[in-house]
Amino acid sequence: MVATAPQPRTGTSPATRLAIIDADVHPSIADYTQLHPYLPETWRRHVSARGFGGPNSGIIRGQGGLYRTDVRPPGGGEPGSDPDFLREQLMERYNVRYPILNGGNILGLGTLPDPDFAAAIASAYNDWTIDFWLTRHNPDGRFKSSLFVAPQDPLAAAQEIDRLGDHPHIVQVLFTTATEAPLGHKRYWPIYEAAERHGLPVAVHPGAEGRAISGAPTAAGWVSKYIEWHTCLTQRAQAHAVSLVCQGVFVRFPALKVVMVESGVSWLSHVMWRLDKNYKALRNEVPWLTELPSEYIKRHIRVTTQPIEEPESRDQFLQMLEMVDARRTLLLSTDYPHWDFDDPIAAFAGVPEDLKRRIFYDNAAELYGAKLGAAA
Amino acid sequence: MVATAPQPRTGTSPATRLAIIDADVHPSIADYTQLHPYLPETWRRHVSARGFGGPNSGIIRGQGGLYRTDVRPPGGGEPGSDPDFLREQLMERYNVRYPILNGGNILGLGTLPDPDFAAAIASAYNDWTIDFWLTRHNPDGRFKSSLFVAPQDPLAAAQEIDRLGDHPHIVQVLFTTATEAPLGHKRYWPIYEAAERHGLPVAVHPGAEGRAISGAPTAAGWVSKYIEWHTCLTQRAQAHAVSLVCQGVFVRFPALKVVMVESGVSWLSHVMWRLDKNYKALRNEVPWLTELPSEYIKRHIRVTTQPIEEPESRDQFLQMLEMVDARRTLLLSTDYPHWDFDDPIAAFAGVPEDLKRRIFYDNAAELYGAKLGAAA
Repeated sequence: MVATAPQPRTGTSPATRLAIIDADVHPSIADYTQLHPYLPETWRRHVSARGFGGPNSGIIRGQGGLYRTDVRPPGGGEPGSDPDFLREQLMERYNVRYPILNGGNILGLGTLPDPDFAAAIASAYNDWTIDFWLTRHNPDGRFKSSLFVAPQDPLAAAQEIDRLGDHPHIVQVLFTTATEAPLGHKRYWPIYEAAERHGLPVAVHPGAEGRAISGAPTAAGWVSKYIEWHTCLTQRAQAHAVSLVCQGVFVRFPALKVVMVESGVSWLSHVMWRLDKNYKALRNEVPWLTELPSEYIKRHIRVTTQPIEEPESRDQFLQMLEMVDARRTLLLSTDYPHWDFDDPIAAFAGVPEDLKRRIFYDNAAELYGAKLGAAA
Repeated sequence: MVATAPQPRTGTSPATRLAIIDADVHPSIADYTQLHPYLPETWRRHVSARGFGGPNSGIIRGQGGLYRTDVRPPGGGEPGSDPDFLREQLMERYNVRYPILNGGNILGLGTLPDPDFAAAIASAYNDWTIDFWLTRHNPDGRFKSSLFVAPQDPLAAAQEIDRLGDHPHIVQVLFTTATEAPLGHKRYWPIYEAAERHGLPVAVHPGAEGRAISGAPTAAGWVSKYIEWHTCLTQRAQAHAVSLVCQGVFVRFPALKVVMVESGVSWLSHVMWRLDKNYKALRNEVPWLTELPSEYIKRHIRVTTQPIEEPESRDQFLQMLEMVDARRTLLLSTDYPHWDFDDPIAAFAGVPEDLKRRIFYDNAAELYGAKLGAAA
């Protein structure tokens, strides 16, 4: 079936005398696990009762699933859906004073082909988040959340920021790194203007690269394995950072901060070095820049730690932190309850106390500002 | 005009009595520099007599042009076209014993939509290279060259490798990083099989990312400025490296080496760390790998130095070389006669002598093997 049209009533037409070969008939499979006996074991886990598509169809999925194995709430339900269990398992255990809630099962929003639908979903999700997480389950005000917007319609996104951006527990604007264009593109400037107006950073988060209108997930095209897809996710952040700086976004919006969530860390020095070197020869293309590109990056771009790269030695790890100017650029994140959760204690073992304090708390406190101070 | 069809003879039809409004007529501009007085100065250099398109149409071009300002041969002609001047300006001045010739004005070959035409151009270019550079102007056998192939037709590419791969001065196979798919894709395996059979490394070189069939030049889509395009070129190399390792190319072709030319250096540690970390959790996707992905990269992938990243300090530069295992992975390159030429003496000042020897000579000597030894 291609589209819904007036349906012919069945049983009312007289049977033809001519035999028919019907060249397009669709049988159904009631439960796709009926395919399991015919599939090699390794592929079975990708095929559930509902099929091999479903709500995340088009995303390359890991064979292990999205979640850690120990995060299902004791009362049942989706991991991350029980505020009390989240408080216990994340906040109490790791001394997380403020978790920044970045949504779950909604990170493909920016790849939906219909901007009107995407904007409606974003608003509904924001209203639900404010009701459930930020009001009913937030007695101490420690839950802070991102505001989802649909980058497909930047004017609607700006309206959403105006509608809810001043909520005391909304601390940033968020959309997917899987956009239709690099983030410096002028089509996105209304979002930055609104975010700056409300004093909110803009965060981007991967999750649906390669799906629908987002284009290929890597610079070389489509990859096929989750390990390839996940490893290459940082390329979007790299391109977005280059684009934001070169197109002059931070010149036009000097108070704007952009957070690259879950998009890797050590690419930052690679991009800063390469872009600075190019700037020295090619600055006539970007006359609006009055400083080295790396200065804009260090002042305006923040990256979250998880999944933090693990060099061959602790020395190299500390060198890497120095190269990316972690003292200014890095924000601690765990990605709870997802499979690739980073334990902050293990990840930053051996890092000097003052630098750890910047990464664990101070950088984020400076970024999210007064809205954190309101809590206990 | 859309296509060539039998042409109506003019002047033979009787004039109509009815007046006509012709809704599609094309005037011509004899020389596009006639637009200059109407253009802001900054854009004039992009518009020549032949227009704003030409043979490299679709590539984002730098405002400064492709070449260094001092490389035009004394007798005239295209930079890099005079073997004696190249010997003098590059080989004698910088003690370059073997220049690996990677072609000029042909790096868009892999993006041509017609594989038959691309393969024909590749063969013609190879025959000309062997005749002009490797025979007539190569009395001491120090000119070594890449063999161009069209990745659009891997079977034709393999035939070309069989045809010319054993020439004593052909030392590697080369095509553009701007391919239709990541390099691990099985469609490319016939190229690797042929290269391995002839003991040749496979090199890839950027230059036409974003043109024709090559897809967007960055993971986030099309960028608009040359500085963005050039800075992001390394993303193709990153994706290709991940794909080559994960798809098992180096397991299937254990003698194969791949050279990423002019595609950046410091991304290598970022990708190795991230891929190794992911491998620990996701190895069931790539059961053919029996070692950490970084081991395959260090053994099978080489990157050329130019344009080398320039960290903030010499210490960081040395740390970066250590992180990418430069002792094994790095090959010196200058990119002569292009604008972003790296002076090897300046670029590697302060690098310990034994490491410099690996980068300047030994790594390449091991890679290109016996064919170098044949020279004086």
